[in-house]
Amino acid sequence: MVPVSLCHHHYHHHGGSCHPATLPFLRMCRIPELQVQSSAFRTSTIMPLLVPRWLCWWRAACTRRAFVQQRMWEGATRISGLGGPAGALGTSPLVRRGSSSASSGAPGVRLTRDRYPVQRLPFSVVSEDDLAALERIIPGRVITDPEELEAPNVDWLRTVRGSSKVLLRPRTSQEVAQILRYCHERNLAVNPQGGNTGLVGGSTPVFDEIVLSTALMSQVLSFHDVSGVLVCQAGCVLEELSRYVEERGFVMPLDLGAKGSCHIGGNVATNAGGLRFLRYGSLRGTVLGLEVVLADGTLLNCLTSLRKDNTGYDLKQLFIGSEGTLGVITAVSILCPPKPSAVNVAFLGCPGFAEVLQTFSTGRRLLGEILSAFEFMDAECLQLVGRHLHLTSPVQESPFYVLIETSGSGADHDAEKLSSFLEQVQDSGLVTDGTLATDQRRIQALWALRERISEALSHDGYVYKYDLSLPLDRLYDLVDDLRARLGPSAKHVVGYGHLGDGNLHLNVTAEAFCESLLGALEPYVYEWTARQRGSVSAEHGLGFKKRDVLGYSKPPEALRLMQQLKALLDPKGILNPYKMLPTRA
Amino acid sequence: MVPVSLCHHHYHHHGGSCHPATLPFLRMCRIPELQVQSSAFRTSTIMPLLVPRWLCWWRAACTRRAFVQQRMWEGATRISGLGGPAGALGTSPLVRRGSSSASSGAPGVRLTRDRYPVQRLPFSVVSEDDLAALERIIPGRVITDPEELEAPNVDWLRTVRGSSKVLLRPRTSQEVAQILRYCHERNLAVNPQGGNTGLVGGSTPVFDEIVLSTALMSQVLSFHDVSGVLVCQAGCVLEELSRYVEERGFVMPLDLGAKGSCHIGGNVATNAGGLRFLRYGSLRGTVLGLEVVLADGTLLNCLTSLRKDNTGYDLKQLFIGSEGTLGVITAVSILCPPKPSAVNVAFLGCPGFAEVLQTFSTGRRLLGEILSAFEFMDAECLQLVGRHLHLTSPVQESPFYVLIETSGSGADHDAEKLSSFLEQVQDSGLVTDGTLATDQRRIQALWALRERISEALSHDGYVYKYDLSLPLDRLYDLVDDLRARLGPSAKHVVGYGHLGDGNLHLNVTAEAFCESLLGALEPYVYEWTARQRGSVSAEHGLGFKKRDVLGYSKPPEALRLMQQLKALLDPKGILNPYKMLPTRA
Repeated sequence: MVPVSLCHHHYHHHGGSCHPATLPFLRMCRIPELQVQSSAFRTSTIMPLLVPRWLCWWRAACTRRAFVQQRMWEGATRISGLGGPAGALGTSPLVRRGSSSASSGAPGVRLTRDRYPVQRLPFSVVSEDDLAALERIIPGRVITDPEELEAPNVDWLRTVRGSSKVLLRPRTSQEVAQILRYCHERNLAVNPQGGNTGLVGGSTPVFDEIVLSTALMSQVLSFHDVSGVLVCQAGCVLEELSRYVEERGFVMPLDLGAKGSCHIGGNVATNAGGLRFLRYGSLRGTVLGLEVVLADGTLLNCLTSLRKDNTGYDLKQLFIGSEGTLGVITAVSILCPPKPSAVNVAFLGCPGFAEVLQTFSTGRRLLGEILSAFEFMDAECLQLVGRHLHLTSPVQESPFYVLIETSGSGADHDAEKLSSFLEQVQDSGLVTDGTLATDQRRIQALWALRERISEALSHDGYVYKYDLSLPLDRLYDLVDDLRARLGPSAKHVVGYGHLGDGNLHLNVTAEAFCESLLGALEPYVYEWTARQRGSVSAEHGLGFKKRDVLGYSKPPEALRLMQQLKALLDPKGILNPYKMLPTRA
Repeated sequence: MVPVSLCHHHYHHHGGSCHPATLPFLRMCRIPELQVQSSAFRTSTIMPLLVPRWLCWWRAACTRRAFVQQRMWEGATRISGLGGPAGALGTSPLVRRGSSSASSGAPGVRLTRDRYPVQRLPFSVVSEDDLAALERIIPGRVITDPEELEAPNVDWLRTVRGSSKVLLRPRTSQEVAQILRYCHERNLAVNPQGGNTGLVGGSTPVFDEIVLSTALMSQVLSFHDVSGVLVCQAGCVLEELSRYVEERGFVMPLDLGAKGSCHIGGNVATNAGGLRFLRYGSLRGTVLGLEVVLADGTLLNCLTSLRKDNTGYDLKQLFIGSEGTLGVITAVSILCPPKPSAVNVAFLGCPGFAEVLQTFSTGRRLLGEILSAFEFMDAECLQLVGRHLHLTSPVQESPFYVLIETSGSGADHDAEKLSSFLEQVQDSGLVTDGTLATDQRRIQALWALRERISEALSHDGYVYKYDLSLPLDRLYDLVDDLRARLGPSAKHVVGYGHLGDGNLHLNVTAEAFCESLLGALEPYVYEWTARQRGSVSAEHGLGFKKRDVLGYSKPPEALRLMQQLKALLDPKGILNPYKMLPTRA
């Protein structure tokens, strides 16, 4: 099979930014699709069969706001992923999430080693000889230009900053293996990096670790159009893969806000959850095989494409969710479900969180197997999305909103199910306003309200992010609790997330990073979560910033075994050091 | 929450056998349900809306066969799981799969250590002092009676036989921890055992390993009726759990023929696939948490009930599918999907395997998200089920049969989808005859034709079993190939399995175990599979019998890492020795 290189030309409005170091040609791209998208807001279609009278399509207000929305879309494309507390780069065209600090010297982002109490481990320092040796392995792809190294040293949230002096850009697994063999021998620390869209400081160096980027490993190796099994290199961008498989009648089993930048290898290394988890489950089920390079350069080929394979321990599971600390994922085999022929999205306003929960129960019952997403957000989320990104709410202001997606194989059947669901939640007062979209552009527009909350928050100041799993009935209590606890010391306290998975994204913003606010939040949030037997990291992982809170969700015996696994697979500790596992006592 | 002990009183017809050592009272049970089931064959209901004219309901032949069928059901209950090459126990009432050798002294089953070239490792031998110490941990539950030890020493297939002298029956995880701490210190080998329904000799001792049974660990610890999360001890029988959650509006995410005997802990340890895999995916996605006792007696509590939890390495994955070689699973937290309100089963005859594949493609397209199982079997399978179990085919004789199950939330919608599917496969000649069932008893009767193939085979003589993952388009080629290769030296060569998962169960029967037939089969079957990049064990695991073929599906680097993991978690190798990993060079 001939490997197919994914084209990076297409653009979507989702908070993405093209990595300038890796895709400089994108700066010249035109964006015709976006103009189409913006105009889509002006027209509206009625589906009388489906839509109860109270559900009006893109209500009158939308027309009036069309101009604003057009600006919004263009603005979103040009500056998405930018801003944050320190210096928005509004004039830089077409940079994607993951590269916000690309050309500015990352002013205002303190070095991680200064902000946090962390000590460099006794790894070697990269020498001129090392650079020459690495250059022999990947000629012309050993980057030492300080300007090019700014982006990979800073995270998307602009909260951590390393001081790596070397960026490596291998194209093949064999090159990765040679690089790691060399680094292992020389005791050089390595920071594997995909799209650098992580939210816990897991994808950027802490000190001077060598950055090993998967950006040039972006080939589709095979796709089987009966089984839907996709095999590709680790550096393929999720959105590109989505487009690739959708053209062939399938969808990727995961989707997330950072899709325009994140790499599939990084998704797997983080065990990303995202927006389709409710329907297609965890990557632990959908990833069929992995190719991984171990710390010592051993190439471990478990790139099977079989749905069932019980031959020995399932080694790939070790690397899924291990955040690059046990091996570097170089290729992924993943099962893509058939593309649903009918997709509907409803965006509804609810008077309270109890009603959100009841809407969820009703949806699970009446929508059954076609329910593919159930997201919620509070009023402040939508206010922030409006204020910072100029997205307008399609429904009346409400204390809570839910976004419900259905995906099915029969449009009429799905419409009937959805209609009966909507009637029931309206009649019982669970939902006070709502809108429904069936065509792809409106669906994307509704999804943007949810997907771009994280981006809107980053425009609001410094963001304290918590990604928690909690019992459904207590899911929002912590947000209320924190609003009362923090009072005016926080700018905003918001809650949103994947309700269907019991996953709350709790975010607190402030004008700037502030130790005393941090002290009010931590360990309070973690202790609260532990009391509910929740998880202090549902889907973002632990990275650098959360590694010391692991103990809130796992017992000491588990921590010990994790340390033992790390020691077994990476005895010198060169892979993504200072990440995931707690500081040793 | 008060733990609920599961009742073991109910009986189903599925090839199960109650473990006499653990549930002796069952011998006295009456079996009213079965009589109802048998009579269900006599009546039939028409669903004219749905059923194309060519699909007749339980065709005329059924009525005529009613007497035979009634005998069949009774027979199946009384002697299910029995037989095999050596002495059927037709007179023994109500023994379930897993205990076939319970009362006969297992005549004819050669000791594993005699049949296979295997050497006992230098573990200690259980002494009187050991027995006394174990008795102090679990008073009255240290079994040394040779008669009671016969059943746990022999596998259900009657192909391997150990010579353990001690059976331990703990009730709690703490007892398991104390037992393992003791055995670890004393260097005593331990064979964890659930329902002993495994097919690869993984659940029975090879020499004198202590059998550690989970049979008394059968309590449901909690069930959450909004989320569907079930937490239970490892020894709960799958069928009992199914009944428990179905009463509460949910289903277990897995189902398999041995449901009447197998323990959920064993299912997880084997990473069982089964009949619902196509719809609900792997246990790696649906198992949310595990409690495990490590080899040295450390109790590892990862019994979380969260859908998403990315705090550290996902340790539970190590134990899923590790066949008791890395730790003993003592409790399981598992996500149960909502019970579908509409279930339909179609049983169809296809003129060739190409048509089976096309029927599958058509089903995936037209049935979409409601397709919950797609099983196939060849003509010989149904002949054997007829001959040995007296089940009759509900459709005309065909070269192949498929069983298609749909599960959905809207009966009318599902019926329409199914109807349009059936019309299409009939019109295009993919299917030449078929029948459809919508009520539970008929559905179970159709399922029995598929689920009881394994049992029918065991009545046919010695069975050489292969459980392979293969590319769909080559799936059946191996069966044809072997028929030609083996000629009359095999009694039957049959193929059936989970087509939707690419999983072929290839079975070859002979009057008795025969070295030369084995030589014709192996390594031929494994080499054939390896050439297709298939898996030599899709869902049964490796156990004792397949451990040396691991290398056909995994590279040497993977084997080495597996050995390292084993050494890390069980440095003395006391847990289920001689299983899963290849004999060391």
